[in-house]
Amino acid sequence: MKVKLLHNTPLEVADIAISKCYDKEPYKDVTKQQSRINRVANVSKHSSTIEHLVYSFDIEGISRAVLQELARHRIASYTVKSTRYTLKELKDEESISENKYKYIVKTKNEEVNRSNLGSLFALQNILQDGVPNDIAKYCLPEAYRTALVMTINARALQNFLALRTDSHALWEIQDLARAMYDVIPNEHRFLFEEVVKG
Amino acid sequence: MKVKLLHNTPLEVADIAISKCYDKEPYKDVTKQQSRINRVANVSKHSSTIEHLVYSFDIEGISRAVLQELARHRIASYTVKSTRYTLKELKDEESISENKYKYIVKTKNEEVNRSNLGSLFALQNILQDGVPNDIAKYCLPEAYRTALVMTINARALQNFLALRTDSHALWEIQDLARAMYDVIPNEHRFLFEEVVKG
Amino acid sequence: MKVKLLHNTPLEVADIAISKCYDKEPYKDVTKQQSRINRVANVSKHSSTIEHLVYSFDIEGISRAVLQELARHRIASYTVKSTRYTLKELKDEESISENKYKYIVKTKNEEVNRSNLGSLFALQNILQDGVPNDIAKYCLPEAYRTALVMTINARALQNFLALRTDSHALWEIQDLARAMYDVIPNEHRFLFEEVVKG
Amino acid sequence: MKVKLLHNTPLEVADIAISKCYDKEPYKDVTKQQSRINRVANVSKHSSTIEHLVYSFDIEGISRAVLQELARHRIASYTVKSTRYTLKELKDEESISENKYKYIVKTKNEEVNRSNLGSLFALQNILQDGVPNDIAKYCLPEAYRTALVMTINARALQNFLALRTDSHALWEIQDLARAMYDVIPNEHRFLFEEVVKG
Repeated sequence: MKVKLLHNTPLEVADIAISKCYDKEPYKDVTKQQSRINRVANVSKHSSTIEHLVYSFDIEGISRAVLQELARHRIASYTVKSTRYTLKELKDEESISENKYKYIVKTKNEEVNRSNLGSLFALQNILQDGVPNDIAKYCLPEAYRTALVMTINARALQNFLALRTDSHALWEIQDLARAMYDVIPNEHRFLFEEVVKG
Repeated sequence: MKVKLLHNTPLEVADIAISKCYDKEPYKDVTKQQSRINRVANVSKHSSTIEHLVYSFDIEGISRAVLQELARHRIASYTVKSTRYTLKELKDEESISENKYKYIVKTKNEEVNRSNLGSLFALQNILQDGVPNDIAKYCLPEAYRTALVMTINARALQNFLALRTDSHALWEIQDLARAMYDVIPNEHRFLFEEVVKG
Repeated sequence: MKVKLLHNTPLEVADIAISKCYDKEPYKDVTKQQSRINRVANVSKHSSTIEHLVYSFDIEGISRAVLQELARHRIASYTVKSTRYTLKELKDEESISENKYKYIVKTKNEEVNRSNLGSLFALQNILQDGVPNDIAKYCLPEAYRTALVMTINARALQNFLALRTDSHALWEIQDLARAMYDVIPNEHRFLFEEVVKG
Repeated sequence: MKVKLLHNTPLEVADIAISKCYDKEPYKDVTKQQSRINRVANVSKHSSTIEHLVYSFDIEGISRAVLQELARHRIASYTVKSTRYTLKELKDEESISENKYKYIVKTKNEEVNRSNLGSLFALQNILQDGVPNDIAKYCLPEAYRTALVMTINARALQNFLALRTDSHALWEIQDLARAMYDVIPNEHRFLFEEVVKG
């Protein structure tokens, strides 16, 4: 998978919000901004003050199994690669065996990977036989890769990272959560480092 | 698929809310309640007044392909059958061929159904070889059946039914949307009949 | 203030949802339902399972000061008495002094109450002079009483009760939170009794 | 009132999201981005694609009457000036008469403005007598000025602007809605110009 941060609100917007609340001056200094935001949002639990910080992630190559879990985080916005176009790509693929991991997520079990390669061949046949996408897609294995842009605020992201970096979470969503954490700007890390596990 | 209405708020709660707004008396008579709710929520577009009407549906046997689309309706609550238990059932199944449509949704294309039956056999083998569920599930075809309880208010349900009874929607989610509409109590039908298509 | 419970989802809907998740049978017995819901939603923190339980409250006589705070709980639905009609009532009131607490919330400070009585007289004059409601309402003191219907699910209600029964919350919203807790059916109390303070 | 735009997501984030959906390349050219976003979000009503565009507004000097209406737009984040600090300012004010419109919104009716000035004097007395803020605030007239930071995505902002620039909306929230529209960057105007009225 590949995760890129497309955009984020600068820290100072949350600091301005907090300073407005208490009728103080905003800070110019990042360290002071961080310390005040941490005190208000994390220590005193006025978490709504960090909803002003919003992150947009470009996520490539996660499985549709992970998408099932991801979309259950309802306080976020998602725009996902349409299956219709995904399938067109596979239909025209000339070397499925060599390129299989372009289409499916590799698991650590070879039997699973082999079975999914079989499903890819079957699905390509079905597509080349002219079966419409809306029916053909019923053969997609959950390992099938997808891509999306996801926008989420810092409060909802804390919740997401806490739940999904936990060792009980699905292995691939743990990888995703850590990859998202890794692209968060250094200045914003203090918001999340206590909730990220492992 | 099987859809059952587990519970719904009585109409009078929305009528009491509206009567409060305008400092009027609530109606005892259902026809008068309907007519006032329709005038305020549908004609005058004060749609928030019907958020007080909430419906809980018991939904059995939709595919995980539909679940992907369903969960994107974020103003609703979902509790879904865990894949873990789903897979245990398949692992112990003794007659996959005969019972295949207990596990997968039947499409109108035989090639697709056959390919999915193949996936079921492969997946059963994988499970019987002791592969953990969190890896085995990457072989699930999107036709795989799941079950859930879904709770949604009348305003969000109007939006869902308008989008998903449309002929451009995925065929199975059209079936689901109509099945949900069919179990809505007669007294509540007037809220939705104009948005339901076809 | 007066708080009445207009409607609530029966407990069994959450139990059916949970049983679906783990592919178990729903319980008929309320004590068993409570114990399973408590284990899953409160102990194991799968709080989304109690979003299926929804409560509609009829709330009369809280101040607009409390309404300011109440409406900041965004995961809930509100239908509030329109100021327009509120003002009509005051305009025609014949005994403001005797009926003052019909219009304003009584605080424990007499100077505040007296000042608000003065505001009522001034506002009545303004209304009787024919000033339109949309301008006259700028004189409303925050003690002015309002009424609403509020619908909220058990998960959001846990959050509301935890924050608003706390001794740091505004005194009147503490009263409101306790009054709401008091009308929750006995069978549902276990969901909230640990978060309610004092 | 004063409205400033603190931050907004660049247009290209929505274009990247849309291009991902259809497996196309993002545009570098702003005019092409605008035209594609307009086609997908506005014409084809895939409004969720513009939820990736988020705006943070710094809003100074609106009345608490407007705050009541503003906070009912639940898909947005608000951090509001605490009444506690607001009141401290008034307590220490030395020239209430001259500075009255620093504290209250001026309406076009002199009787209303005069009555509110009276309320300010009464409230200052109450505060100087040592009445705690949580009780004193029950005397605040709804004209009292407040300040906030508000963060909202383009989809919710379209809804806000459509409803609140309408001539039936409260006059001051019409002013606010237009002031917010005025600070939206030129490149983003096409998203809103059709919903803004008057």
